[in-house]
Amino acid sequence: MFIGKVIGNVWATQKHAQLQNLKLLLVKPISPNDAKFSGVTTLAVDGNIGAGVGDTVLVVDEGGSARKILNNPKAPVRTIICGIVD
Amino acid sequence: MFIGKVIGNVWATQKHAQLQNLKLLLVKPISPNDAKFSGVTTLAVDGNIGAGVGDTVLVVDEGGSARKILNNPKAPVRTIICGIVD
Amino acid sequence: MFIGKVIGNVWATQKHAQLQNLKLLLVKPISPNDAKFSGVTTLAVDGNIGAGVGDTVLVVDEGGSARKILNNPKAPVRTIICGIVD
Amino acid sequence: MFIGKVIGNVWATQKHAQLQNLKLLLVKPISPNDAKFSGVTTLAVDGNIGAGVGDTVLVVDEGGSARKILNNPKAPVRTIICGIVD
Amino acid sequence: MFIGKVIGNVWATQKHAQLQNLKLLLVKPISPNDAKFSGVTTLAVDGNIGAGVGDTVLVVDEGGSARKILNNPKAPVRTIICGIVD
Repeated sequence: MFIGKVIGNVWATQKHAQLQNLKLLLVKPISPNDAKFSGVTTLAVDGNIGAGVGDTVLVVDEGGSARKILNNPKAPVRTIICGIVD
Repeated sequence: MFIGKVIGNVWATQKHAQLQNLKLLLVKPISPNDAKFSGVTTLAVDGNIGAGVGDTVLVVDEGGSARKILNNPKAPVRTIICGIVD
Repeated sequence: MFIGKVIGNVWATQKHAQLQNLKLLLVKPISPNDAKFSGVTTLAVDGNIGAGVGDTVLVVDEGGSARKILNNPKAPVRTIICGIVD
Repeated sequence: MFIGKVIGNVWATQKHAQLQNLKLLLVKPISPNDAKFSGVTTLAVDGNIGAGVGDTVLVVDEGGSARKILNNPKAPVRTIICGIVD
Repeated sequence: MFIGKVIGNVWATQKHAQLQNLKLLLVKPISPNDAKFSGVTTLAVDGNIGAGVGDTVLVVDEGGSARKILNNPKAPVRTIICGIVD
Protein backbone atom coordinates (compact mmCIF):
# COMPACT_ATOMS: atom_id res chain seq x y z
CA MET A 1 0.00 0.00 0.00
CA PHE A 2 1.30 3.46 -0.78
CA ILE A 3 0.49 7.16 -1.01
CA GLY A 4 0.46 8.69 -4.46
CA LYS A 5 -0.69 11.63 -6.51
CA VAL A 6 -3.13 11.34 -9.40
CA ILE A 7 -1.38 12.84 -12.43
CA GLY A 8 -3.69 11.91 -15.29
CA ASN A 9 -6.51 9.92 -16.84
CA VAL A 10 -6.28 7.07 -19.30
CA TRP A 11 -8.74 6.54 -22.12
CA ALA A 12 -8.66 3.14 -23.72
CA THR A 13 -10.00 2.66 -27.24
CA GLN A 14 -10.59 -1.00 -26.49
CA LYS A 15 -10.87 -2.63 -23.13
CA HIS A 16 -12.18 -5.75 -21.45
CA ALA A 17 -15.93 -5.68 -20.70
CA GLN A 18 -15.36 -5.82 -16.94
CA LEU A 19 -13.33 -2.58 -17.13
CA GLN A 20 -16.01 -0.65 -19.04
CA ASN A 21 -17.42 1.48 -16.23
CA LEU A 22 -14.26 2.00 -14.26
CA LYS A 23 -12.24 5.22 -14.07
CA LEU A 24 -8.59 4.56 -14.95
CA LEU A 25 -6.12 6.98 -13.36
CA LEU A 26 -2.35 7.41 -13.48
CA VAL A 27 -0.87 7.58 -10.00
CA LYS A 28 2.71 8.47 -9.12
CA PRO A 29 3.93 7.38 -5.68
CA ILE A 30 5.08 10.21 -3.44
CA SER A 31 7.35 10.27 -0.45
CA PRO A 32 4.93 11.17 2.36
CA ASN A 33 7.40 13.35 4.24
CA ASP A 34 8.12 15.91 1.57
CA ALA A 35 5.50 15.06 -1.09
CA LYS A 36 8.24 14.52 -3.69
CA PHE A 37 7.58 11.94 -6.38
CA SER A 38 9.28 8.58 -5.85
CA GLY A 39 9.03 5.49 -8.00
CA VAL A 40 7.25 4.55 -11.18
CA THR A 41 3.84 5.73 -12.38
CA THR A 42 1.13 3.15 -11.88
CA LEU A 43 -2.27 2.65 -13.47
CA ALA A 44 -5.03 2.48 -10.84
CA VAL A 45 -8.80 2.22 -10.76
CA ASP A 46 -10.85 4.64 -8.67
CA GLY A 47 -12.64 2.58 -6.00
CA ASN A 48 -15.76 4.71 -5.98
CA ILE A 49 -13.90 7.34 -4.00
CA GLY A 50 -14.28 10.10 -6.57
CA ALA A 51 -10.54 10.68 -6.95
CA GLY A 52 -9.32 12.94 -9.74
CA VAL A 53 -6.21 14.62 -11.09
CA GLY A 54 -4.29 16.44 -8.36
CA ASP A 55 -5.60 14.36 -5.46
CA THR A 56 -3.26 12.65 -3.01
CA VAL A 57 -4.59 9.13 -2.63
CA LEU A 58 -4.26 5.83 -0.76
CA VAL A 59 -3.49 2.99 -3.15
CA VAL A 60 -3.73 -0.75 -2.54
CA ASP A 61 -1.88 -2.87 -5.10
CA GLU A 62 -3.59 -6.25 -4.69
CA GLY A 63 -6.26 -7.93 -6.80
CA GLY A 64 -8.20 -9.39 -3.88
CA SER A 65 -8.61 -5.96 -2.28
CA ALA A 66 -9.55 -4.39 -5.60
CA ARG A 67 -12.31 -6.89 -6.33
CA LYS A 68 -13.74 -6.49 -2.81
CA ILE A 69 -13.84 -2.69 -3.15
CA LEU A 70 -15.43 -2.87 -6.60
CA ASN A 71 -17.80 -5.55 -5.32
CA ASN A 72 -17.09 -7.48 -8.51
CA PRO A 73 -15.33 -10.86 -8.20
CA LYS A 74 -14.66 -10.82 -11.96
CA ALA A 75 -12.90 -7.46 -12.21
CA PRO A 76 -9.44 -7.75 -13.81
CA VAL A 77 -7.99 -5.07 -11.56
CA ARG A 78 -4.94 -5.16 -9.31
CA THR A 79 -4.39 -1.53 -8.26
CA ILE A 80 -7.19 0.43 -6.59
CA ILE A 81 -7.62 3.85 -4.99
CA CYS A 82 -9.39 3.44 -1.65
CA GLY A 83 -8.97 6.83 0.03
CA ILE A 84 -8.07 10.48 -0.36
CA VAL A 85 -5.53 12.13 1.93
CA ASP A 86 -6.09 15.74 2.82
CA MET B 1 -1.25 -2.25 -13.45
CA PHE B 2 0.74 -0.33 -16.00
CA ILE B 3 0.84 1.11 -19.51
CA GLY B 4 3.28 -0.47 -21.94
CA LYS B 5 4.17 -0.87 -25.58
CA VAL B 6 4.14 -4.20 -27.37
CA ILE B 7 7.63 -4.67 -28.83
CA GLY B 8 7.58 -8.24 -30.05
CA ASN B 9 6.15 -11.74 -30.18
CA VAL B 10 7.46 -14.87 -28.52
CA TRP B 11 7.34 -18.30 -30.12
CA ALA B 12 7.90 -21.20 -27.79
CA THR B 13 9.07 -24.54 -29.17
CA GLN B 14 7.58 -26.26 -26.16
CA LYS B 15 4.96 -24.95 -23.82
CA HIS B 16 2.42 -26.09 -21.27
CA ALA B 17 -0.86 -27.33 -22.78
CA GLN B 18 -2.87 -24.52 -21.16
CA LEU B 19 -0.72 -21.95 -22.99
CA GLN B 20 -1.22 -23.51 -26.44
CA ASN B 21 -3.74 -21.10 -27.91
CA LEU B 22 -2.55 -17.94 -26.26
CA LYS B 23 -0.66 -15.10 -27.95
CA LEU B 24 2.55 -14.31 -26.05
CA LEU B 25 3.77 -10.72 -26.42
CA LEU B 26 6.74 -8.76 -25.12
CA VAL B 27 5.66 -5.54 -23.43
CA LYS B 28 7.92 -2.74 -22.28
CA PRO B 29 6.46 -0.35 -19.68
CA ILE B 30 6.31 3.27 -20.78
CA SER B 31 6.10 6.46 -18.82
CA PRO B 32 2.63 7.73 -19.77
CA ASN B 33 3.63 11.41 -19.84
CA ASP B 34 6.27 11.27 -22.50
CA ALA B 35 5.88 7.70 -23.85
CA LYS B 36 9.52 6.93 -23.01
CA PHE B 37 10.36 3.37 -22.07
CA SER B 38 10.78 2.75 -18.35
CA GLY B 39 11.48 -0.52 -16.59
CA VAL B 40 12.04 -4.08 -17.66
CA THR B 41 10.43 -5.93 -20.57
CA THR B 42 7.67 -8.28 -19.48
CA LEU B 43 6.06 -11.27 -21.13
CA ALA B 44 2.28 -10.87 -21.36
CA VAL B 45 -0.66 -12.77 -22.83
CA ASP B 46 -3.16 -11.00 -25.06
CA GLY B 47 -6.52 -11.11 -23.27
CA ASN B 48 -8.57 -11.46 -26.45
CA ILE B 49 -8.02 -7.78 -27.14
CA GLY B 50 -6.24 -8.27 -30.44
CA ALA B 51 -3.10 -6.43 -29.37
CA GLY B 52 -0.05 -6.55 -31.62
CA VAL B 53 3.42 -5.10 -32.06
CA GLY B 54 3.39 -1.31 -31.79
CA ASP B 55 0.23 -1.04 -29.71
CA THR B 56 0.14 0.87 -26.42
CA VAL B 57 -1.64 -1.39 -23.98
CA LEU B 58 -3.10 -1.71 -20.47
CA VAL B 59 -1.42 -4.52 -18.55
CA VAL B 60 -2.56 -6.23 -15.36
CA ASP B 61 0.14 -8.24 -13.60
CA GLU B 62 -1.92 -10.60 -11.44
CA GLY B 63 -2.83 -14.24 -11.96
CA GLY B 64 -6.38 -13.95 -10.64
CA SER B 65 -7.20 -11.20 -13.15
CA ALA B 66 -5.54 -13.10 -15.97
CA ARG B 67 -7.54 -16.27 -15.37
CA LYS B 68 -10.80 -14.32 -15.21
CA ILE B 69 -10.06 -12.56 -18.50
CA LEU B 70 -9.09 -15.80 -20.23
CA ASN B 71 -12.11 -17.48 -18.65
CA ASN B 72 -9.82 -20.40 -17.78
CA PRO B 73 -9.21 -21.15 -14.09
CA LYS B 74 -6.30 -23.41 -15.04
CA ALA B 75 -4.29 -20.95 -17.13
CA PRO B 76 -0.71 -20.54 -15.85
CA VAL B 77 -0.65 -16.84 -16.67
CA ARG B 78 0.19 -13.87 -14.49
CA THR B 79 0.49 -10.93 -16.90
CA ILE B 80 -2.38 -10.05 -19.24
CA ILE B 81 -3.21 -7.33 -21.72
CA CYS B 82 -6.74 -6.07 -21.09
CA GLY B 83 -6.98 -2.89 -23.16
CA ILE B 84 -5.51 -0.76 -25.92
CA VAL B 85 -4.80 2.93 -25.40
CA ASP B 86 -5.22 5.21 -28.34
CA MET C 1 8.12 -9.79 5.17
CA PHE C 2 10.41 -7.08 6.50
CA ILE C 3 11.47 -5.04 9.51
CA GLY C 4 10.62 -1.34 9.47
CA LYS C 5 10.27 1.76 11.58
CA VAL C 6 6.98 3.62 11.96
CA ILE C 7 7.65 7.21 10.89
CA GLY C 8 4.20 8.76 10.79
CA ASN C 9 0.42 8.53 10.70
CA VAL C 10 -1.90 9.08 7.75
CA TRP C 11 -5.27 10.75 8.04
CA ALA C 12 -7.59 10.27 5.09
CA THR C 13 -10.40 12.73 4.48
CA GLN C 14 -12.27 10.06 2.56
CA LYS C 15 -11.77 6.34 2.72
CA HIS C 16 -13.48 3.08 1.94
CA ALA C 17 -15.93 1.92 4.64
CA GLN C 18 -13.88 -1.19 5.42
CA LEU C 19 -10.89 1.02 6.30
CA GLN C 20 -12.80 3.24 8.74
CA ASN C 21 -11.59 1.84 12.06
CA LEU C 22 -8.07 0.95 11.02
CA LYS C 23 -4.92 2.83 12.03
CA LEU C 24 -2.88 3.77 8.95
CA LEU C 25 0.86 4.14 9.56
CA LEU C 26 3.84 5.03 7.40
CA VAL C 27 6.61 2.46 7.72
CA LYS C 28 10.13 2.75 6.33
CA PRO C 29 12.06 -0.51 5.92
CA ILE C 30 15.29 -0.68 7.89
CA SER C 31 18.37 -2.78 7.47
CA PRO C 32 18.24 -5.00 10.57
CA ASN C 33 22.01 -5.02 11.11
CA ASP C 34 22.58 -1.32 11.55
CA ALA C 35 19.01 0.04 11.77
CA LYS C 36 19.64 2.32 8.77
CA PHE C 37 16.70 3.07 6.53
CA SER C 38 16.59 1.10 3.28
CA GLY C 39 13.94 1.17 0.60
CA VAL C 40 10.73 3.04 0.02
CA THR C 41 8.19 4.16 2.63
CA THR C 42 5.12 1.95 2.73
CA LEU C 43 1.61 2.48 4.05
CA ALA C 44 0.64 -0.21 6.56
CA VAL C 45 -2.29 -0.99 8.83
CA ASP C 46 -1.73 -1.74 12.51
CA GLY C 47 -2.88 -5.34 13.10
CA ASN C 48 -4.18 -4.70 16.61
CA ILE C 49 -0.61 -4.64 17.88
CA GLY C 50 -0.72 -1.09 19.18
CA ALA C 51 2.19 0.11 17.06
CA GLY C 52 2.94 3.81 16.92
CA VAL C 53 5.48 6.32 15.66
CA GLY C 54 9.04 5.32 16.59
CA ASP C 55 8.36 1.59 16.95
CA THR C 56 10.38 -1.01 15.07
CA VAL C 57 7.87 -3.40 13.60
CA LEU C 58 7.36 -6.67 11.72
CA VAL C 59 5.51 -6.09 8.47
CA VAL C 60 3.79 -8.64 6.22
CA ASP C 61 3.03 -7.38 2.73
CA GLU C 62 0.29 -9.79 1.60
CA GLY C 63 -3.47 -9.35 1.47
CA GLY C 64 -4.33 -12.85 2.66
CA SER C 65 -2.27 -12.40 5.83
CA ALA C 66 -3.71 -8.94 6.43
CA ARG C 67 -7.31 -10.11 6.22
CA LYS C 68 -6.61 -13.02 8.58
CA ILE C 69 -5.02 -10.71 11.17
CA LEU C 70 -7.86 -8.20 10.92
CA ASN C 71 -10.35 -11.07 11.01
CA ASN C 72 -12.17 -9.34 8.15
CA PRO C 73 -12.34 -11.14 4.79
CA LYS C 74 -13.51 -7.90 3.15
CA ALA C 75 -10.68 -5.61 4.28
CA PRO C 76 -8.95 -3.92 1.32
CA VAL C 77 -5.54 -4.13 2.99
CA ARG C 78 -2.29 -5.57 1.71
CA THR C 79 0.34 -4.41 4.22
CA ILE C 80 -0.05 -5.17 7.93
CA ILE C 81 1.99 -4.73 11.10
CA CYS C 82 1.95 -8.00 13.04
CA GLY C 83 4.66 -7.52 15.68
CA ILE C 84 6.91 -5.10 17.52
CA VAL C 85 10.64 -5.73 17.79
CA ASP C 86 12.36 -4.66 20.97
CA MET D 1 6.07 -13.42 -16.59
CA PHE D 2 9.49 -13.18 -18.14
CA ILE D 3 12.02 -14.81 -20.45
CA GLY D 4 15.17 -16.18 -18.83
CA LYS D 5 18.11 -18.48 -19.31
CA VAL D 6 18.72 -21.53 -17.14
CA ILE D 7 22.21 -21.12 -15.67
CA GLY D 8 22.42 -23.92 -13.14
CA ASN D 9 20.85 -26.55 -10.92
CA VAL D 10 20.31 -26.46 -7.17
CA TRP D 11 20.71 -29.47 -4.91
CA ALA D 12 19.20 -29.13 -1.49
CA THR D 13 20.45 -31.33 1.35
CA GLN D 14 17.13 -30.87 3.11
CA LYS D 15 13.86 -29.80 1.61
CA HIS D 16 10.15 -29.85 2.26
CA ALA D 17 8.45 -33.14 1.33
CA GLN D 18 6.34 -31.47 -1.38
CA LEU D 19 9.52 -30.33 -3.16
CA GLN D 20 11.12 -33.80 -3.23
CA ASN D 21 10.53 -34.75 -6.86
CA LEU D 22 10.86 -31.33 -8.40
CA LYS D 23 13.80 -30.08 -10.45
CA LEU D 24 15.13 -26.79 -9.04
CA LEU D 25 16.83 -24.54 -11.60
CA LEU D 26 18.54 -21.16 -11.45
CA VAL D 27 17.14 -18.78 -14.06
CA LYS D 28 18.54 -15.40 -14.99
CA PRO D 29 16.16 -13.02 -16.76
CA ILE D 30 17.29 -11.91 -20.20
CA SER D 31 16.38 -8.95 -22.29
CA PRO D 32 14.56 -10.57 -25.24
CA ASN D 33 15.92 -8.19 -27.85
CA ASP D 34 19.61 -8.82 -27.41
CA ALA D 35 19.60 -11.87 -25.09
CA LYS D 36 21.70 -9.95 -22.51
CA PHE D 37 21.18 -10.80 -18.88
CA SER D 38 19.01 -8.35 -16.95
CA GLY D 39 17.92 -8.56 -13.35
CA VAL D 40 18.47 -10.93 -10.48
CA THR D 41 18.85 -14.72 -10.64
CA THR D 42 15.71 -16.54 -9.57
CA LEU D 43 15.09 -20.06 -8.35
CA ALA D 44 12.45 -21.82 -10.47
CA VAL D 45 10.88 -25.26 -10.70
CA ASP D 46 10.70 -27.07 -14.03
CA GLY D 47 7.01 -27.51 -14.85
CA ASN D 48 7.45 -30.90 -16.55
CA ILE D 49 8.87 -29.14 -19.59
CA GLY D 50 12.26 -30.83 -19.45
CA ALA D 51 14.21 -27.58 -19.22
CA GLY D 52 17.92 -27.75 -18.48
CA VAL D 53 21.04 -25.61 -18.28
CA GLY D 54 21.42 -23.41 -21.34
CA ASP D 55 17.76 -23.33 -22.31
CA THR D 56 15.89 -20.07 -22.84
CA VAL D 57 12.64 -20.44 -20.96
CA LEU D 58 9.25 -18.88 -20.19
CA VAL D 59 8.86 -18.25 -16.47
CA VAL D 60 5.69 -17.49 -14.52
CA ASP D 61 6.28 -16.06 -11.06
CA GLU D 62 2.99 -16.82 -9.32
CA GLY D 63 2.06 -19.57 -6.86
CA GLY D 64 -1.40 -20.20 -8.29
CA SER D 65 0.01 -20.86 -11.76
CA ALA D 66 2.79 -23.04 -10.37
CA ARG D 67 0.41 -25.28 -8.43
CA LYS D 68 -1.85 -25.68 -11.48
CA ILE D 69 1.07 -26.69 -13.68
CA LEU D 70 2.39 -29.14 -11.12
CA ASN D 71 -1.14 -30.39 -10.55
CA ASN D 72 -0.43 -30.26 -6.83
CA PRO D 73 -2.44 -27.80 -4.72
CA LYS D 74 0.01 -28.27 -1.84
CA ALA D 75 3.25 -27.45 -3.67
CA PRO D 76 5.18 -24.62 -1.97
CA VAL D 77 6.31 -23.18 -5.29
CA ARG D 78 6.01 -19.66 -6.66
CA THR D 79 8.24 -19.63 -9.75
CA ILE D 80 7.71 -22.15 -12.55
CA ILE D 81 9.10 -22.81 -16.00
CA CYS D 82 6.24 -23.40 -18.42
CA GLY D 83 7.86 -23.23 -21.84
CA ILE D 84 11.07 -23.30 -23.87
CA VAL D 85 11.83 -20.63 -26.44
CA ASP D 86 13.78 -21.67 -29.49
CA MET E 1 11.86 -18.08 -5.09
CA PHE E 2 15.47 -17.38 -4.24
CA ILE E 3 18.59 -18.62 -2.51
CA GLY E 4 19.72 -16.72 0.58
CA LYS E 5 21.89 -16.87 3.65
CA VAL E 6 20.49 -16.70 7.18
CA ILE E 7 22.24 -13.78 8.89
CA GLY E 8 20.34 -13.41 12.15
CA ASN E 9 17.32 -14.03 14.36
CA VAL E 10 14.53 -11.64 15.27
CA TRP E 11 12.93 -11.50 18.69
CA ALA E 12 9.63 -9.66 18.85
CA THR E 13 8.43 -8.27 22.17
CA GLN E 14 4.87 -8.39 20.87
CA LYS E 15 3.53 -10.43 18.03
CA HIS E 16 0.32 -11.80 16.61
CA ALA E 17 -0.86 -15.03 18.27
CA GLN E 18 -0.46 -17.04 15.04
CA LEU E 19 3.25 -16.13 14.95
CA GLN E 20 3.96 -17.26 18.53
CA ASN E 21 5.69 -20.57 17.87
CA LEU E 22 7.45 -19.66 14.65
CA LYS E 23 11.18 -19.00 14.25
CA LEU E 24 11.78 -15.63 12.59
CA LEU E 25 15.04 -15.37 10.66
CA LEU E 26 16.75 -12.64 8.66
CA VAL E 27 17.73 -13.86 5.20
CA LYS E 28 19.90 -12.02 2.70
CA PRO E 29 19.61 -13.12 -0.93
CA ILE E 30 22.84 -14.37 -2.47
CA SER E 31 23.95 -14.67 -6.04
CA PRO E 32 24.20 -18.45 -6.49
CA ASN E 33 27.27 -18.33 -8.71
CA ASP E 34 29.68 -16.62 -6.37
CA ALA E 35 27.73 -16.62 -3.07
CA LYS E 36 27.95 -12.81 -2.87
CA PHE E 37 25.09 -10.99 -1.20
CA SER E 38 22.60 -9.37 -3.58
CA GLY E 39 19.44 -7.52 -2.71
CA VAL E 40 17.66 -6.52 0.45
CA THR E 41 17.46 -8.48 3.71
CA THR E 42 14.13 -10.22 4.17
CA LEU E 43 12.33 -11.56 7.21
CA ALA E 44 11.44 -15.24 6.80
CA VAL E 45 9.87 -17.99 8.87
CA ASP E 46 11.60 -21.37 9.20
CA GLY E 47 9.27 -23.94 7.63
CA ASN E 48 10.17 -26.72 10.08
CA ILE E 49 13.46 -27.21 8.25
CA GLY E 50 15.67 -26.41 11.22
CA ALA E 51 17.48 -23.55 9.47
CA GLY E 52 19.78 -21.35 11.53
CA VAL E 53 22.32 -18.55 11.23
CA GLY E 54 24.92 -19.32 8.57
CA ASP E 55 22.79 -21.72 6.54
CA THR E 56 22.23 -21.24 2.81
CA VAL E 57 18.51 -21.70 2.27
CA LEU E 58 15.71 -21.96 -0.29
CA VAL E 59 13.12 -19.22 0.23
CA VAL E 60 9.61 -18.99 -1.17
CA ASP E 61 8.06 -15.53 -0.96
CA GLU E 62 4.35 -16.31 -1.24
CA GLY E 63 1.66 -16.53 1.43
CA GLY E 64 -0.14 -19.52 -0.05
CA SER E 65 3.06 -21.60 -0.03
CA ALA E 66 3.91 -20.47 3.48
CA ARG E 67 0.54 -21.47 4.91
CA LYS E 68 0.72 -24.88 3.22
CA ILE E 69 4.19 -25.55 4.65
CA LEU E 70 3.16 -24.45 8.14
CA ASN E 71 -0.06 -26.43 7.76
CA ASN E 72 -1.89 -23.41 9.21
CA PRO E 73 -4.38 -21.61 6.95
CA LYS E 74 -4.44 -18.69 9.41
CA ALA E 75 -0.71 -17.97 9.57
CA PRO E 76 0.10 -14.34 8.65
CA VAL E 77 3.29 -15.32 6.87
CA ARG E 78 4.48 -14.54 3.36
CA THR E 79 8.15 -15.59 3.31
CA ILE E 80 9.15 -19.13 4.24
CA ILE E 81 12.31 -21.22 4.29
CA CYS E 82 11.60 -24.60 2.68
CA GLY E 83 15.05 -26.11 2.16
CA ILE E 84 18.75 -26.00 2.99
CA VAL E 85 21.37 -25.99 0.26
CA ASP E 86 24.62 -27.77 0.97
